[in-house]
Amino acid sequence: MLNPADATFAQRLAERLPPDTIGPAEPRHLEDPRGRARTPQAVLARPRSVAEVATILSACASARVGLVPFGGGTGLVLGQIVPDGPAPLILSLERMNNLRGIWPEEGLMIVEAGMTLAAAQEAAQAAGRLFPLSLASEGTARIGGVLATNAGGVNVLRYGNARELCLGIEAVMADGSVLHGLKRLRKDNTGYDLKDLLIGSEGTLGIITAAVLRLWPIPAGRATALVQVPSPEAALSLLSLAQDHTGGNVTSFELISGQGLHFLHEVMPDLRQPFDPIPEWSALVELGLPRGVDPASTMETILQAGAERALLSDGVIAQSESQAQALWTMRESIPLANRRIGAIVSHDIAVPLGEIGNFVREATRAVGQIGPFRVNCFGHLGDGNLHFNVFPPAGNSAQTYRAQADEIQRRVHDLVDRYGGSISAEHGIGRAKRAELERYGDPTKLAAMRAIKAVLDPVGILNPGAVIGPAWPDKILS
Amino acid sequence: MLNPADATFAQRLAERLPPDTIGPAEPRHLEDPRGRARTPQAVLARPRSVAEVATILSACASARVGLVPFGGGTGLVLGQIVPDGPAPLILSLERMNNLRGIWPEEGLMIVEAGMTLAAAQEAAQAAGRLFPLSLASEGTARIGGVLATNAGGVNVLRYGNARELCLGIEAVMADGSVLHGLKRLRKDNTGYDLKDLLIGSEGTLGIITAAVLRLWPIPAGRATALVQVPSPEAALSLLSLAQDHTGGNVTSFELISGQGLHFLHEVMPDLRQPFDPIPEWSALVELGLPRGVDPASTMETILQAGAERALLSDGVIAQSESQAQALWTMRESIPLANRRIGAIVSHDIAVPLGEIGNFVREATRAVGQIGPFRVNCFGHLGDGNLHFNVFPPAGNSAQTYRAQADEIQRRVHDLVDRYGGSISAEHGIGRAKRAELERYGDPTKLAAMRAIKAVLDPVGILNPGAVIGPAWPDKILS
Repeated sequence: MLNPADATFAQRLAERLPPDTIGPAEPRHLEDPRGRARTPQAVLARPRSVAEVATILSACASARVGLVPFGGGTGLVLGQIVPDGPAPLILSLERMNNLRGIWPEEGLMIVEAGMTLAAAQEAAQAAGRLFPLSLASEGTARIGGVLATNAGGVNVLRYGNARELCLGIEAVMADGSVLHGLKRLRKDNTGYDLKDLLIGSEGTLGIITAAVLRLWPIPAGRATALVQVPSPEAALSLLSLAQDHTGGNVTSFELISGQGLHFLHEVMPDLRQPFDPIPEWSALVELGLPRGVDPASTMETILQAGAERALLSDGVIAQSESQAQALWTMRESIPLANRRIGAIVSHDIAVPLGEIGNFVREATRAVGQIGPFRVNCFGHLGDGNLHFNVFPPAGNSAQTYRAQADEIQRRVHDLVDRYGGSISAEHGIGRAKRAELERYGDPTKLAAMRAIKAVLDPVGILNPGAVIGPAWPDKILS
Repeated sequence: MLNPADATFAQRLAERLPPDTIGPAEPRHLEDPRGRARTPQAVLARPRSVAEVATILSACASARVGLVPFGGGTGLVLGQIVPDGPAPLILSLERMNNLRGIWPEEGLMIVEAGMTLAAAQEAAQAAGRLFPLSLASEGTARIGGVLATNAGGVNVLRYGNARELCLGIEAVMADGSVLHGLKRLRKDNTGYDLKDLLIGSEGTLGIITAAVLRLWPIPAGRATALVQVPSPEAALSLLSLAQDHTGGNVTSFELISGQGLHFLHEVMPDLRQPFDPIPEWSALVELGLPRGVDPASTMETILQAGAERALLSDGVIAQSESQAQALWTMRESIPLANRRIGAIVSHDIAVPLGEIGNFVREATRAVGQIGPFRVNCFGHLGDGNLHFNVFPPAGNSAQTYRAQADEIQRRVHDLVDRYGGSISAEHGIGRAKRAELERYGDPTKLAAMRAIKAVLDPVGILNPGAVIGPAWPDKILS
């Protein structure tokens, strides 16, 4: 059983650290971005070095105080929110935001966990390289959180998710020992892959304090287009065609539902939309191409070939960087519009690519049987990753339908499971999906996870109640 | 302490399995490809299904019998060889070699662990896709071994190593329970990354029985060239130039030392070599390009730009598939020539890309201070991965210098460590490098590895003596 991070604990810990390291948490550390829950009480630690992180972990371990790592606070599964149980210490990495070094010819840089994703992208850009991880909250999300949750985003298709863009980590383990793994290497087969075990473990196995990030050459040419497609299946065939044509150089392939564009129209009427009337399905396609090929004409050839096979009915190719940016702004505004409309329940799911069309139709029908809901299904089609979000009928608030949220989620997740999919494609488990993981997870996997958690964090101080291990509130949040 | 796999054990186990599953091991299961050690005695199991593998693991666990997984037997670090201790059961996956399914539009296939790497490449090719993992022993190496050792090879630069080409695994854990992870998904953030923990664990944490492998579009055009470069540094700058020009579409960049070509000349005089006299350094470059670009002229432009910056002095661009093949045959014959010459000691190392030139010069000098040895340094330059192999003076046998092997290795590995490198870039640890891992490994990493091994394989039956955990022979092989 854990003890609360009380005043005595805070004061003793503060004495071992530079002034200003320990203090009270601010509202931004305590509130869920979707407003579903909050941490009622916590002590805040803002260390400046890995040594200070180690001191904090040692203190938590001896006092049996729970510790919640905190990046930008943009996580969507309550991984950073502790609504119940003994008050934790919140460990914010915000002051560890240095670029430790960048080696453009080696294609890598070493950054601290508290650097924002946008700052990491800018550091790479300034050195003539691309750090391709990109997602809507990149201005706020920090590298530590991005790695702890193995974040995805819009360029996974070509460059992989956070895991594949990280070559090594420095981390502090539950006993305060430091894992030194910041080697500037592409290949290292010396023993078990602890880097990938910590990546995606959401702070429950160790605290990532710095990382070696992989950089890519900036593609010489980019082409961006928005196309109307008759169905998700047609979109997939178009993707396959584009991949064949470019030898795998499609960087993004985002599916957009008509519902999402209607939401945009409703809450952001000033945002110009290229198609009128709004099509049921469209896709945002981006290619990253080598020198010697004309991006616009490559895109044109692909769309031409797609049109001949009836894979698309209309399309616009961006003629300038600002036109491309406008298309991306539209895509990236969808989550914001969703938030303003207010979802009853959101699903971050993946299904096999070939099953996407069937799944979307069947899931939409299943939701329709429960009530007259609106479904906004959008996401990273090339990764099989859909955000299948369910909203109240127009003019109603999500609150009215809160009682049906569990039923909707059960139907959708059951279907995901039947299709051999994932109930968390990119957001993680946190505290919001613990019960879902227990329900749908492979029993052998869950047993191995519990065993690993127990041995790497025997007192259970690391992000207690998240992902796996003893959940001290009896009720599990969903 | 483990018990030997004796006749009684073998007979009892045989009774629980179909006829012919249990039998005596053949020489090929017992011998190291480099002839350094052999397994004196073992029982052989050749199961046909994951259920049979589970039965075998359960039996080994209850009888406390060690189990050594066996793929193609091509591992170079004695991971499949047990020279000492109680006789093990050798679990060969050779009969589990089915293609369970292939989905070309989804870019993936599911294969069993006993399929050879070449057969996996062919299955992909037949479906119009590329399975890019490629290495010299691909005709013999099997997917299970390739994953268990996280194999690398010549296309890592563009497509990643075995780990990045695997989307999911089916595996049997030490207690006989089955991990069902064969989902056809690109993204799945439901809990800890057990896939990557098992990949590269060399059969010490679980037995991989099948895998979801990632397929890529076949590049529309390929260009292959062999160039003379003045130094490893120049080669790296040429690589950087080629990456910039192609937007990251360099598929291979192999460094070849003059010594390697001299060895080829010595033991394979009929193999035609393009350069006369043999250059001190050369590089084999391959690009994989989209449609709409002419591969040969792209390569020409790159080599031209390289020549202007004095990054190369001469080069040949393959004018046909068979010329490209001839260049690759030359590259792939180097390990074979090495074996015929007979190395005193081989090093599979990685150093930061920017340090390769300094490292090679310093290491060559250090080896030269020990004796009049010949160094053949070659490898996957783009990955920072070099095979730094040391040979006796011409006319002498490696046997004569066996006593100096340890000293050479110590000097080379000390230097690797000082440069922030890896003492095993792609071959793994096995039993040959256990002592080196203990010496150079990060203490926190080693402690976590021991903890994980102890909890996932409490009896210690899985590949006992490999990588980590109790080594029952007191002496550790090197």
